[in-house]
Amino acid sequence: MGNQSIAVFPGSFDPLTNGHVDIVERSLKIFDRLVVAVLHNPQKQHLFSVDERVELLKKEFKHYGKRTKVLSFSGLLVDFAKKVDARVIVRGLRAVSDYEYEMQMALMNRHLRQEMETVFLITNERNSYISSTMVKGVAMLGGSVHTLVPRAVEDALLKKLKRKK
Amino acid sequence: MGNQSIAVFPGSFDPLTNGHVDIVERSLKIFDRLVVAVLHNPQKQHLFSVDERVELLKKEFKHYGKRTKVLSFSGLLVDFAKKVDARVIVRGLRAVSDYEYEMQMALMNRHLRQEMETVFLITNERNSYISSTMVKGVAMLGGSVHTLVPRAVEDALLKKLKRKK
Amino acid sequence: MGNQSIAVFPGSFDPLTNGHVDIVERSLKIFDRLVVAVLHNPQKQHLFSVDERVELLKKEFKHYGKRTKVLSFSGLLVDFAKKVDARVIVRGLRAVSDYEYEMQMALMNRHLRQEMETVFLITNERNSYISSTMVKGVAMLGGSVHTLVPRAVEDALLKKLKRKK
Amino acid sequence: MGNQSIAVFPGSFDPLTNGHVDIVERSLKIFDRLVVAVLHNPQKQHLFSVDERVELLKKEFKHYGKRTKVLSFSGLLVDFAKKVDARVIVRGLRAVSDYEYEMQMALMNRHLRQEMETVFLITNERNSYISSTMVKGVAMLGGSVHTLVPRAVEDALLKKLKRKK
Amino acid sequence: MGNQSIAVFPGSFDPLTNGHVDIVERSLKIFDRLVVAVLHNPQKQHLFSVDERVELLKKEFKHYGKRTKVLSFSGLLVDFAKKVDARVIVRGLRAVSDYEYEMQMALMNRHLRQEMETVFLITNERNSYISSTMVKGVAMLGGSVHTLVPRAVEDALLKKLKRKK
Amino acid sequence: MGNQSIAVFPGSFDPLTNGHVDIVERSLKIFDRLVVAVLHNPQKQHLFSVDERVELLKKEFKHYGKRTKVLSFSGLLVDFAKKVDARVIVRGLRAVSDYEYEMQMALMNRHLRQEMETVFLITNERNSYISSTMVKGVAMLGGSVHTLVPRAVEDALLKKLKRKK
Repeated sequence: MGNQSIAVFPGSFDPLTNGHVDIVERSLKIFDRLVVAVLHNPQKQHLFSVDERVELLKKEFKHYGKRTKVLSFSGLLVDFAKKVDARVIVRGLRAVSDYEYEMQMALMNRHLRQEMETVFLITNERNSYISSTMVKGVAMLGGSVHTLVPRAVEDALLKKLKRKK
Repeated sequence: MGNQSIAVFPGSFDPLTNGHVDIVERSLKIFDRLVVAVLHNPQKQHLFSVDERVELLKKEFKHYGKRTKVLSFSGLLVDFAKKVDARVIVRGLRAVSDYEYEMQMALMNRHLRQEMETVFLITNERNSYISSTMVKGVAMLGGSVHTLVPRAVEDALLKKLKRKK
Repeated sequence: MGNQSIAVFPGSFDPLTNGHVDIVERSLKIFDRLVVAVLHNPQKQHLFSVDERVELLKKEFKHYGKRTKVLSFSGLLVDFAKKVDARVIVRGLRAVSDYEYEMQMALMNRHLRQEMETVFLITNERNSYISSTMVKGVAMLGGSVHTLVPRAVEDALLKKLKRKK
Repeated sequence: MGNQSIAVFPGSFDPLTNGHVDIVERSLKIFDRLVVAVLHNPQKQHLFSVDERVELLKKEFKHYGKRTKVLSFSGLLVDFAKKVDARVIVRGLRAVSDYEYEMQMALMNRHLRQEMETVFLITNERNSYISSTMVKGVAMLGGSVHTLVPRAVEDALLKKLKRKK
Repeated sequence: MGNQSIAVFPGSFDPLTNGHVDIVERSLKIFDRLVVAVLHNPQKQHLFSVDERVELLKKEFKHYGKRTKVLSFSGLLVDFAKKVDARVIVRGLRAVSDYEYEMQMALMNRHLRQEMETVFLITNERNSYISSTMVKGVAMLGGSVHTLVPRAVEDALLKKLKRKK
Repeated sequence: MGNQSIAVFPGSFDPLTNGHVDIVERSLKIFDRLVVAVLHNPQKQHLFSVDERVELLKKEFKHYGKRTKVLSFSGLLVDFAKKVDARVIVRGLRAVSDYEYEMQMALMNRHLRQEMETVFLITNERNSYISSTMVKGVAMLGGSVHTLVPRAVEDALLKKLKRKK
């Protein structure tokens, strides 16, 4: 496996949830380095800009030092993975419907770059119902997301939603 | 991640299929060493004895040299994993129903030994319909399993089934 | 369980279908009172306004007298449920994909208000393929929805779609 | 709904798990009384006899007083439900595969007795991977089931498995 | 498609249910001839012998004249299909778990005989919860299967179960 | 089944993929004639206009001669099917989530026109991860779709996307 195993963990992270944090922690038990890749998709509307998201993730994962790197990307994931020297994509699994879409993505990515391998990790059962979409929905309706996202994300969410009112 | 990443790939392998071989190959792109762990379950009826299965797998994976090791185990998988110094369990995924059972197993194994991580790999789509049970069923009814299992397994299956008649 | 069991049945009801009516009937076999809660979501486009939907449901469930109440709500469902003194959310289940989303919602609602319980009822198998979206789709293309929705809803649909042409 | 709402919670309970206990607690928030119905199926092999299971459940639910009753039953569940005056069956849901079988059972029970309603509750996410079968498997292989079953069940399991050796 | 389209509908039919009858009817709208193929599996225990099952099906489908044929088979389904000149296998679908197994079988049969095509039909929603296993279970516990199976099957079931007591 | 069996294969085909081509080929082994029906939905945004799509499909299936016909349609599928004298709808299946939606559509279409039958075919496992949406996504990000769509579609995609830049 060469000297260092490098994996990439792609996502929108709009915003980062405890489920994402859990997958990062688990990935670092398996791989030497993890590139957290924030998708920059100009065609989709996001609550946080790609720069804001990268910033929040960088703070959150700073304590891992050089083992994690947060970068934004656009274009094909397999091209980005190649550039950062990663042969493995990490994805977290929750529900069955996730799984089917993820499986199709994994096969497509393997088709696009044959040596690309996708590994799936199971998130903690406490996080099984947490998605970025749900978190935003709850926060917008005034519910507490205190135990669903990291502290800094909660603060950013509250600030962002106030600004929008 | 220490010096060497070691994963364990558990199963009954009764018999080994091309799907299993595919997962072993993929695992070796991710981990330094892989322990293929043949479950010895005296309460279940098998076509091949645990010794026969270990033998077949050893031959099949010999060309990987020291990177793979084939062992039988009984008892809790997490205890076996600890003994061989593996913190990662590898499982291949095909269908949704697989996935649910696998997810429960992964959570249970994490419960039994907290640092135990299960990673799921997606088998080649060509293998999506191959299971040991199907292979045995086809072989018993006289169908060809030529493209479903490694050559040596095909030979062993034919010999075993003839002997049984 | 106190003196009176009160449940809330939330939905968009755009429009009410025979599947919804079936769930209301079943709920009233289990709970003393049912609050049918029409979601007012200004960010989504609806065929019927929230007032029109409330009106249609009120007529449809009038014969249950005080046992049902139709109200609109916005904001968090758990807050609305608290206001109407309901500790139980009722949801109807049809397909597996429904079920996963519903399960995540149920866990989230429990997270947001711990004493909140969600119960799932199985709709009559005759209604297994009826959803508001399908009903609208069929009506817009000129198909008959006679056996899919209550009579008054059919009339309202025809009127609404004519008016739109 | 008459004066008192009575529900029946059927199962094999071989053995009782924390998942079952969770469903009983949730049911008592919804129904006035709950009959926990231990299936006596002479054609299946059980670890605990039906009498042992009834005994363990009675102890576990004693603190609920008259609100719960533990009984064994054989024959059709709908006939048993009628005898104990219950019009509602309670079932806990975990996985998607559970759900499909449960849905078919619910429809069949409704077919056999039209006024029979099945309600599904979602177990705590902490219990999502706990089943009686898994618990027995872990205990037989020497793993700890301390956080998976009530204390008395753990004791009974250890005693039973020792006795069997 | 040549002169006559012939399909084979394989199953255990232990016993024939209204769901099976529904699929036969639907198949005859699509294919010129249908061979209903009763699996003879000596390793499985059946309630009705293969001869009894063939007899019951023959009576039930007699009114279709030459368009249906009831035969028993053992060995590979694709070999049987070839013998009766059928290039199409018909299967009825109910649940998602059915579907996955059926999909694997379809791919395996295609692997075993390349020109073999499997088509899936959707049973009437009224039959969505009827399986041979459920029917036997209900009948054994004294429940009525009157609306679940054809009249002659009901009679045979009652006779068979009485004889067994 | 009358003299000629006619089936309709509806879809958006935006664009046609190898998965669609596979289903057309399989359908022609079962039915005498196949009408490939391109949905004209003015409310949805498409990459290719309905005329462009019809044109691409006509070229692709020209070699089947009179056995296939490519037409666009709007309105209810069952009305279109009646007009072209088809009593059978053909759909390809890949994933479980497909299947549920497809099942509901099939039941709805049967409800709208009782003699309408839907048959499901299993696509080649090589195509299990190919959808029009994925193909467009890959092409837009600069990935090769060479082995995912017919040659002419690849050319049209490249031209279309260049034109859009």
